[in-house]
Amino acid sequence: MQLREMLGVEWPILQAPMAGVQLGALAAAVSQAGGLGALPCALITPAVMAKELELIRSRTAKPFNVNFFCHEPPRVDAAREAAWRAALDPYYRELGIDPGSIAAGPGRAPFSAEAADALQPFRPAVVSFHFGLPAPELLARVKGWGSKVIASATTVDEARWLEARGVDAVIAQGAEAGGHRGMFLSTDLTTQVGTFALVPQVVRAVKVPVIAAGGIADAKGVAAALALGASAVQVGTAFLLCEEATTPSIHRAALKSDAARHTALTNVFTGRPARGIVNRIVREVGPISAHAPEFPLATAAIAPLRAKAEARGSGDFSPLWSGENSSGCREIPAANLVRSLASSG
Amino acid sequence: MQLREMLGVEWPILQAPMAGVQLGALAAAVSQAGGLGALPCALITPAVMAKELELIRSRTAKPFNVNFFCHEPPRVDAAREAAWRAALDPYYRELGIDPGSIAAGPGRAPFSAEAADALQPFRPAVVSFHFGLPAPELLARVKGWGSKVIASATTVDEARWLEARGVDAVIAQGAEAGGHRGMFLSTDLTTQVGTFALVPQVVRAVKVPVIAAGGIADAKGVAAALALGASAVQVGTAFLLCEEATTPSIHRAALKSDAARHTALTNVFTGRPARGIVNRIVREVGPISAHAPEFPLATAAIAPLRAKAEARGSGDFSPLWSGENSSGCREIPAANLVRSLASSG
Repeated sequence: MQLREMLGVEWPILQAPMAGVQLGALAAAVSQAGGLGALPCALITPAVMAKELELIRSRTAKPFNVNFFCHEPPRVDAAREAAWRAALDPYYRELGIDPGSIAAGPGRAPFSAEAADALQPFRPAVVSFHFGLPAPELLARVKGWGSKVIASATTVDEARWLEARGVDAVIAQGAEAGGHRGMFLSTDLTTQVGTFALVPQVVRAVKVPVIAAGGIADAKGVAAALALGASAVQVGTAFLLCEEATTPSIHRAALKSDAARHTALTNVFTGRPARGIVNRIVREVGPISAHAPEFPLATAAIAPLRAKAEARGSGDFSPLWSGENSSGCREIPAANLVRSLASSG
Repeated sequence: MQLREMLGVEWPILQAPMAGVQLGALAAAVSQAGGLGALPCALITPAVMAKELELIRSRTAKPFNVNFFCHEPPRVDAAREAAWRAALDPYYRELGIDPGSIAAGPGRAPFSAEAADALQPFRPAVVSFHFGLPAPELLARVKGWGSKVIASATTVDEARWLEARGVDAVIAQGAEAGGHRGMFLSTDLTTQVGTFALVPQVVRAVKVPVIAAGGIADAKGVAAALALGASAVQVGTAFLLCEEATTPSIHRAALKSDAARHTALTNVFTGRPARGIVNRIVREVGPISAHAPEFPLATAAIAPLRAKAEARGSGDFSPLWSGENSSGCREIPAANLVRSLASSG
């Protein structure tokens, strides 16, 4: 079966789920335009998810994707937490924040039975996972109600692992991609390869269709990914300026500036490597800090710095997620971007 | 003018110059087959270069490329050299090498007036540079005798810098590429982006033709690079097993093994970041060591370890240069590889 038929889409174009910068409005617009829109659920409760899914359903009858993280819940490590707060202490003092006032705690929730309960009534056409797959019984539930399952691979080994566990397609996430690396079989960043190297090798290694992600920003990029053997593409960064995205104004300004030409993989915002525009905290504490607590615990200690700085109009402590190729960002309706990506050249 | 006309080649395929693993035989075979072969001169004397150029001339009347590094000659730093040797000391002891017996000194020479004198009688169709460009008077000499000049850019800024200084085409070297990063305006590795992100942004930034490099291993890769806006491609890794290459047997064996799936940018072999297969010295001392002396001074201290280990059949200390996509490596004549790359799909 062709991937487009399997997903029920007009174009081989998936909108990458981007937690924190979009909800159902973007997903609905992309799906209605013939791509596959996605609702990222890592930062929202099952109740908010249900509300956003209602919104998508009210706007389009076409298929969409609902996305979840499936990391292991972290173990709190008091010593590491203390070291992290010590590393951030100069910033607390600079911004007048009382470190004692900052709650610890996770920032992103993995897929759970509770989430599955809330999702089941919607039976979305597609469910996607990042950081591996949920426990077998949870995965079986999702497949059991008829959703197609896709998941991110950053290496050939991960693609094979996912195929062996029954995914319907693999997203080959090249190192150019913005946001969190989906890596889950290794924490070694040198295993992360570019889209040009990853896609052909994954295509050769698995029998399921491959969706190329990372650095794809326009119709030429789509054509190039298909030439490499991908059956479809997943595009994230180019949607960040679309009017349906909820990208904060500071993030939008950064994407429109020359600063967007320099991104890095950094763990300072969440504890896991993710690609964003290099800003002050990335430059001074990262890009990779050995002190950052395990994902997603690093988030809590950064949050008040981000809030206070943003209130002053500064993005110095904000995660400015972006891929390496932000040249496709346009302040246009998402439907126009989908059509532009789908136009041949 | 189209790039193919400018270079005088039948196919938009350049063989990447690869110092240490090939000489004139590979260059001649590629050029004779309709690509642009290249002679890398970083590791050979002007006298050897002249001999190899005679060999190429004897085998083909077609255009070829002669390649030079143009790094700043390094400053010897005794403290850093001592720290580097201390880091390597456990290996000297393991392999029974007297550290006092190891000469210091450079390992690769930049383009020079002497090299220009030796090159001038050959007036090659193309001269290429890595790590920027030579001094203006040397560059003017090369252009003055009629060679087209091309050079590597790893960022948009470097591409603009090269264009402003008169190069005839820019090689956009994506992070997937094997061997030394051509970076010269920054030493920050986070500036290095994948081919999928680099090529379209360089194409948009400069008026001269762009040659895509990094991760291109087969005809599909060539098609993808051209779809991204490149006028031609430069392929290195795929040529490493060709019979005309001088790739050592240990290096060939590594390329044929699963080990080739894991490469890293490492400075342990020369002092500058270069991509190679992860082996013992990269894993244990690198991939990036703060102690490695300035390029190319790090080479001297590794050389005896490499020699002794290789004599025992081990590649633990050898630079096993490779890009991230070694799936195109074939033990075939280079002419066959050129034809295979040039076949549409």
